Amino acid sequence: MKRIVECVPNFSEGHRKDIISQIVGALASVEGVRVLDVQSDADHNRSVVTLVGDPEAVEEAAFQGIERAARLIDMDQHQGEHPRMGATDVVPFVPIAGVTMADCVEMARRLGERVGRELAIPVYLYEEAASRPERRNLADVRRGEYEGLKVEIETDSHRTPDFGPAGVGKAGATAIGARPPLVAFNVYLNTDDVAIAKAIARAVRHSSGGLRYVKALGLLVEGRAQVSMNLTDHRQTPIHRVVEMIRREAARYGVTIVSSEVVGLIPNEALLDATRFYLQLDDFSSDQILENRLAE
Amino acid sequence: MKRIVECVPNFSEGHRKDIISQIVGALASVEGVRVLDVQSDADHNRSVVTLVGDPEAVEEAAFQGIERAARLIDMDQHQGEHPRMGATDVVPFVPIAGVTMADCVEMARRLGERVGRELAIPVYLYEEAASRPERRNLADVRRGEYEGLKVEIETDSHRTPDFGPAGVGKAGATAIGARPPLVAFNVYLNTDDVAIAKAIARAVRHSSGGLRYVKALGLLVEGRAQVSMNLTDHRQTPIHRVVEMIRREAARYGVTIVSSEVVGLIPNEALLDATRFYLQLDDFSSDQILENRLAE
Repeated sequence: MKRIVECVPNFSEGHRKDIISQIVGALASVEGVRVLDVQSDADHNRSVVTLVGDPEAVEEAAFQGIERAARLIDMDQHQGEHPRMGATDVVPFVPIAGVTMADCVEMARRLGERVGRELAIPVYLYEEAASRPERRNLADVRRGEYEGLKVEIETDSHRTPDFGPAGVGKAGATAIGARPPLVAFNVYLNTDDVAIAKAIARAVRHSSGGLRYVKALGLLVEGRAQVSMNLTDHRQTPIHRVVEMIRREAARYGVTIVSSEVVGLIPNEALLDATRFYLQLDDFSSDQILENRLAE
Repeated sequence: MKRIVECVPNFSEGHRKDIISQIVGALASVEGVRVLDVQSDADHNRSVVTLVGDPEAVEEAAFQGIERAARLIDMDQHQGEHPRMGATDVVPFVPIAGVTMADCVEMARRLGERVGRELAIPVYLYEEAASRPERRNLADVRRGEYEGLKVEIETDSHRTPDFGPAGVGKAGATAIGARPPLVAFNVYLNTDDVAIAKAIARAVRHSSGGLRYVKALGLLVEGRAQVSMNLTDHRQTPIHRVVEMIRREAARYGVTIVSSEVVGLIPNEALLDATRFYLQLDDFSSDQILENRLAE
């Protein structure tokens, strides 16, 4: 099977097109890497880039992007609504195919060490790559943002970075980590009563007692109640379990599912897991998919 | 999306390994083609090869295989249980990805013309590529086999080939066509009563009033009743419809589905259709599968 890693670096520039395109150019310059998406938000003053490729190429591309952003972005001048602490703010590696989470953790550590050593940027490992439990959650790592960290990193030993100097320059600090792929998934109900969507969202989401890797909101979209979700680890909380739970909760209100939608991209394995469940497919290997055999 | 065609040529040699490997070598010699499987049966005295690749490469490989088999196999010497009429007996093209059935029909016609012209082998177009209704069914095309055709092709205008001479040499004649991919799919029931599997097979299969593109048998496999099927066109009779029909029929006998299995390879689209159905995924495009975007 072809080895594929996704990387979704976030850069602290959402206005200046020339700077964004120079950073994207640095990411795309590495052979074996494809930039699938660039989303720049002016209010957040932030750009989110999605790139994929083989692990070695993606790791090198991430380094090139961080190096370029450090030269082009001055965090002392940066303002924006989104919390941030560095020119390259976060760099998550995501295993897609033929690669384990452990491989991505190793990539994060190796890249972090290199960024600290070669670029003198403080690096914090987060999520699956975290070196201690209190650094798993990105929001905890980024507390105080650039301005706060600048002071604390020199005075508070809890803020000592995993790699690089205990001092922040104009490029700020960078969080590098590994996480499962995120799936944006919405379910539409045959009702315009948004209260039902909100009640179902509360039932399925982790924060109010539901499934561990589900974030959910109830919305009204074009006259239909919608349960809008982020599935943050489809391997541990698979899509079919979420759908069947919504189906059961909806029945309690006398409504049914009309349709669902995947927003953006989804790994094939997430779809295959649903097929396995509904068709009760035992012992099915993705090697049996003709396209995968051809790609070998 | 990457364009992929499958081709499953059948050759009239199942014993002599050197001849089989020369033919497979000719097929595999074309760049862009992968030989996925070779099954040789001594009783049938026949080998079935599965190859895949981009359309141009697969068409060229099929020609090379036919040419080599014509030089190595003498049909006057051939004996075997399986019906046959040529050294290369049948050559079906199967659309897998990024290719339509019409494209495969065109491949069959172009290859047939070339085989008739360059190799002086009579060619009959069959299934989706057939030039007349009575040639769609391979069994009708092959009636009388090599020995019968040798006489009839010169005397009976109904046997005039689509391409090539109205006369049979030692390489015999070849059927070239296009068909949908075939999926071998079995469903296990929580009973050892094979009569139930047989009754369900009768209900779902085309020949006794069931679904158009389903062939089915009831078997007892390792103590479990099994509905054993060939799905001959999963695009028109999708897997989920077959499974749900079996589920409903099984309920009538008080039994349930324990598991199912895909034997061999399956196109990803067949699995994706099941996911679409069960998750009620509207407007989902296979472009949203990360792996497909990368392969673009």
